[in-house]
Amino acid sequence: MNDLPPHLHPTRILITAGSTQEPIDEVRFLGNRSSGKLGALLAISAADAGYEVTLLHGPRTISPTSHPRLQAFPFSSSRDLKAKLDEFWQSHSILIMAAAVSDYTPKGGQVDGKLKRGESMTLDLVPTQDIVASISEHSREDQRIIAFALEEQEELRDAAHAKLIRKGVDAIIANPLETMESSKINATILLKDGSELNPPTHCTKAEFARWLIENLNLVTRITSQAK
Amino acid sequence: MNDLPPHLHPTRILITAGSTQEPIDEVRFLGNRSSGKLGALLAISAADAGYEVTLLHGPRTISPTSHPRLQAFPFSSSRDLKAKLDEFWQSHSILIMAAAVSDYTPKGGQVDGKLKRGESMTLDLVPTQDIVASISEHSREDQRIIAFALEEQEELRDAAHAKLIRKGVDAIIANPLETMESSKINATILLKDGSELNPPTHCTKAEFARWLIENLNLVTRITSQAK
Repeated sequence: MNDLPPHLHPTRILITAGSTQEPIDEVRFLGNRSSGKLGALLAISAADAGYEVTLLHGPRTISPTSHPRLQAFPFSSSRDLKAKLDEFWQSHSILIMAAAVSDYTPKGGQVDGKLKRGESMTLDLVPTQDIVASISEHSREDQRIIAFALEEQEELRDAAHAKLIRKGVDAIIANPLETMESSKINATILLKDGSELNPPTHCTKAEFARWLIENLNLVTRITSQAK
Repeated sequence: MNDLPPHLHPTRILITAGSTQEPIDEVRFLGNRSSGKLGALLAISAADAGYEVTLLHGPRTISPTSHPRLQAFPFSSSRDLKAKLDEFWQSHSILIMAAAVSDYTPKGGQVDGKLKRGESMTLDLVPTQDIVASISEHSREDQRIIAFALEEQEELRDAAHAKLIRKGVDAIIANPLETMESSKINATILLKDGSELNPPTHCTKAEFARWLIENLNLVTRITSQAK
């Protein structure tokens, strides 16, 4: 693998963590409660395992410990995250999309200044671009994308499977809604070929992050190893 | 003052910091970009100066350094903050309301589960209760309230003055919108009697916090001192 140019080296991982903020006016925004904890843990685990890691993290995400193989850059809105992914993706081999991207943004964009307090207000929202689907469409054959699905338990598997197809990704890590508030994780991993992987049940987010990085070849079906 | 029962001791300060999150569904919320930095600095300055401090802080606010005279409690939504203020206010003498309270909350409250991504969406918002006005209405004569106004520069003084009257507070610390993104602060303090106080211009938030606590008697017109 060593004769590949650096931008094609298979051991560069791009990880997103935290959530986007869609600005309503200069002070208010639409947000998501994702803490960015799992994404930051994945970044550290991957760097520890020898991968070169780029972490894109949302506003007020837990800052990752510094690491010689880890570079971190902040993002704010979903539009900003998309621009940063467009910039970084081609020099990476694996994308782990742990960030929660807002599905909606205010129609017409951000209002200048600060909206006045009034009687009542209607906020018209339009869907944001499906970032993962777009990134997936513009990926090379040697690149792999792992996305996340956070859904209600009853419909978790069906919703995750639909997401796998719709977004054209290689793997979906499906979690019930309860994961967000919990220090534990109980994920099911659905792969493109129809198979499923089950990590140890009820492990901590740090344990899960290490497990996923150790089993990245299994998940991505890329046979390369971290350096 | 020493023969007053503890809950009436004039040196207990209640400080709010950060911003409320108004839940839309189980993962999404309406937020405010206030970082909570100034409120946390005020809490530390006040504890350092000898006051007994209770800090109510929003989600993902900078956690204050621990201090023997500082107790911190988290809040989430504006409704939750109101409940906590109702609980704590009567045992305190001064309220410094540095938190950014959402002016709006989704009509009908939080939706169970997670809304599905769709074509477009309209979010009907209704005004939240004016927490400061309500707290002020139920205050004793010996209690003082300092509130904040964050407004566009051109209308800062007028808007802050209107807020002082509408909310029935003793002082308003008026800041231009730019303060939010800045490490510096350039505040004007409007008092109930029509007078104004001007702290040193362009000081850091930490310097401003110390100045405000040192000049609390001037701002609140309470002649008592911290222990």
